[in-house]
Amino acid sequence: MMRELSVDLGEARSYPIYIGENILEDIVELFKRRGIPKGSPLLIVTDNLVAPHYLDRLTGLLETGGYKVLHTVVPAGEQSKSLEVFEQVITAALQGGLDRNSTIIALGGGVVGDLAGFSAASYMRGVRFVQIPTTVLAHDSSVGGKVAVNHRLAKNIIGAFHQPQMVVYDTATLKSLPEREVRAGLSEVVKHGLIWDREFVAWCGEHSEELLNLQQAALQHALYEGCRIKSLVVSQDERESGLRAVLNLGHTIGHALEAVAKYQELLHGEAISIGMVGAAILSVRMGNPEYIYTETKKLLQKFRLPVSIPEHMDTEAIMRAMMHDKKFKEGTMVFVIPADIGKVEIRGNIPADWVRETIEQLKKEA
Amino acid sequence: MMRELSVDLGEARSYPIYIGENILEDIVELFKRRGIPKGSPLLIVTDNLVAPHYLDRLTGLLETGGYKVLHTVVPAGEQSKSLEVFEQVITAALQGGLDRNSTIIALGGGVVGDLAGFSAASYMRGVRFVQIPTTVLAHDSSVGGKVAVNHRLAKNIIGAFHQPQMVVYDTATLKSLPEREVRAGLSEVVKHGLIWDREFVAWCGEHSEELLNLQQAALQHALYEGCRIKSLVVSQDERESGLRAVLNLGHTIGHALEAVAKYQELLHGEAISIGMVGAAILSVRMGNPEYIYTETKKLLQKFRLPVSIPEHMDTEAIMRAMMHDKKFKEGTMVFVIPADIGKVEIRGNIPADWVRETIEQLKKEA
Ligand SMILES: NC(=O)c1ccc[n+]([C@@H]2O[C@H](COP(=O)([O-])OP(=O)(O)OC[C@H]3O[C@@H](n4cnc5c(N)ncnc54)[C@H](O)[C@@H]3O)[C@@H](O)[C@H]2O)c1
Ligand SMILES: NC(=O)c1ccc[n+]([C@@H]2O[C@H](COP(=O)([O-])OP(=O)(O)OC[C@H]3O[C@@H](n4cnc5c(N)ncnc54)[C@H](O)[C@@H]3O)[C@@H](O)[C@H]2O)c1
Ligand SMILES: [Zn+2]
Ligand SMILES: [Zn+2]
Repeated sequence: MMRELSVDLGEARSYPIYIGENILEDIVELFKRRGIPKGSPLLIVTDNLVAPHYLDRLTGLLETGGYKVLHTVVPAGEQSKSLEVFEQVITAALQGGLDRNSTIIALGGGVVGDLAGFSAASYMRGVRFVQIPTTVLAHDSSVGGKVAVNHRLAKNIIGAFHQPQMVVYDTATLKSLPEREVRAGLSEVVKHGLIWDREFVAWCGEHSEELLNLQQAALQHALYEGCRIKSLVVSQDERESGLRAVLNLGHTIGHALEAVAKYQELLHGEAISIGMVGAAILSVRMGNPEYIYTETKKLLQKFRLPVSIPEHMDTEAIMRAMMHDKKFKEGTMVFVIPADIGKVEIRGNIPADWVRETIEQLKKEA
Repeated sequence: MMRELSVDLGEARSYPIYIGENILEDIVELFKRRGIPKGSPLLIVTDNLVAPHYLDRLTGLLETGGYKVLHTVVPAGEQSKSLEVFEQVITAALQGGLDRNSTIIALGGGVVGDLAGFSAASYMRGVRFVQIPTTVLAHDSSVGGKVAVNHRLAKNIIGAFHQPQMVVYDTATLKSLPEREVRAGLSEVVKHGLIWDREFVAWCGEHSEELLNLQQAALQHALYEGCRIKSLVVSQDERESGLRAVLNLGHTIGHALEAVAKYQELLHGEAISIGMVGAAILSVRMGNPEYIYTETKKLLQKFRLPVSIPEHMDTEAIMRAMMHDKKFKEGTMVFVIPADIGKVEIRGNIPADWVRETIEQLKKEA
């Protein structure tokens, strides 16, 4: 069984997301359906932890289907989202003779997706791009067309908007993903519920164990809903002028925690889990009902995600990191705040003191 | 007096080109008219040969107008169109605190335009971009939104389509441009005539001396017409699907000559001057009237542009360089061929032998 979802962005750039177990087997049929040309070589970009599991199989399938297939393997981890590794991908594209009709394929998580996507956006000023996500978190990065690499001074600062031709989400690939990565990815799934869909939040609460155990039907439903919600938001605001900011629930505090932990101690999904609890605390502080906080926290705990800030992290360092965040426009503090479960608001002028109190409280959460 | 031209690309991305002597003085007024925001810093990108002439003045004008202005100076020359220098521009943008509402300004020729343009396209996934061209050739690069840097294996291979907010073409700045650069730039002006407008070709023939002497009225007319023709072509084919290829008249042979000369001996405009004579030879070889060749050659000679290939250049090396050119789709040779003066056609399947003969003949031209 295969679920299909369409990301709607106006005729020329809308694209399908296919979700299902073992649908990698159908890749040639899907490529054909989408008109990926055979005359020009394909380039698979993947990382050294994903490659041993799936690279040969994907290559074999595509070759059997009549495609010429090249690949480049980058080191696993965030440090591959750099201009140096980007140049390595472009070199591979040039040496492999990729032309304007070629397609660059991301086989991996969000890191490989962002890197391969920016390469596809820039090579010859833009070639086709296909995403084959292999992490739970990548349900998030496969919708929206945001692709980027990092600069040593800032994350995701060098990038483009480049929509994929399609996303082929084979949920069987998630079986090899480390458990902690599964949990962290589910944090973004829950986030999509919290910003948009109370019913889906309730469903997540009831199916946390199935999701953590990668039970396929539940997993596919969750990824489908996560992609659906993100794509609804994105298609209403493709170039990030306003609405899209709701996707940053938990990210203001989350990004600061990641930075202070030097991207070592906390995974992104773990950091935003804590950040979502923080946003709920601020919400209550602003006068919203207490259950927003208690339910958010309970839900994230069901997914065995962290809900408190490790004590050794310095409050002022976290505050400083937030001040550097892009989301602070001209000095004022902007936050995405839950107005209810499944509903958020963007609020400006949040007093820095409230945020500081929230950080302190997050250090005391159990 | 100021000429104004609009590049039409659908509401959101159309932009004006202003052409006139000393219109740099009006920059603040023009920025205001276009709504360039004052709250966010501007970054001027320029090169070390242009900076001494115009950087202080431009900075002073903008600061007097209430803008916060930063700059980064890159080494003059094609080698600055690299990922390394691109990273330098991004670093300057980050260190200067540029945000999403900032504007990157290219002050210089096509090199600075392409580099600053790609930086503006990529920084935070796209910020505003303004072009202040200071070469004749840059009339070409300021229309069309093509921005790029080079890879050591291929020119312009890493790039984007990113339209400027506006182009402010102060023709007084051309007075400091070396004469050889003036001539090379006029080669592209003539090219725009040859592909599109017989009358303008005739006008160019009559005004070559005024143009070479930078007589202002003639110069402004020529740049206006060059921009107008390019913008007509581009607005009909923004993403380069077909028509836009006519702009490559003279470029297939021209690029090969530049490559064989290792980008040392011939300026781009000089190389395409020779290439345009080559295209005219092929045209006659295909059965078109002889005057296409004689008039093309005479016109280019009036501009003291080269019309023959330096004898020491190896024919086979030139042929090989052409085979590497992007314009050869799947092995067949595609050429832009004049069908008449002011009119071109795109022809596929040109026998390699005809091209070889043409190269040989170009070595014998006087
Ligand atoms: N573009 C967007 O809109 C967007 C949205 C969210 C996140 N992101 C980006 O995504 C990145 C994080 O994504 P991620 O969490 O997927 O990280 P990731 O790509 O680094 O994957 C996490 C780890 O799991 C390994 N892995 C991946 N798939 C595997 C599999 N099936 N089996 C075994 N190991 C596997 C990887 O090698 C890596 O070590 C960040 O760089 C973030 O900025 C982008
Ligand atoms: N984007 C496009 O559509 C497009 C079109 C055509 C060419 N280009 C690119 O443009 C570049 C060539 O442009 P160019 O010929 O303007 O080269 P350039 O920018 O290198 O300028 C030529 C030389 O003149 C100097 N100079 C520039 N303005 C001056 C002035 N007013 N006074 C004194 N010196 C001055 C520069 O320092 C440089 O040494 C190439 O990289 C080419 O790929 C791009
Ligand atoms: Zn996130
Ligand atoms: Zn040119």
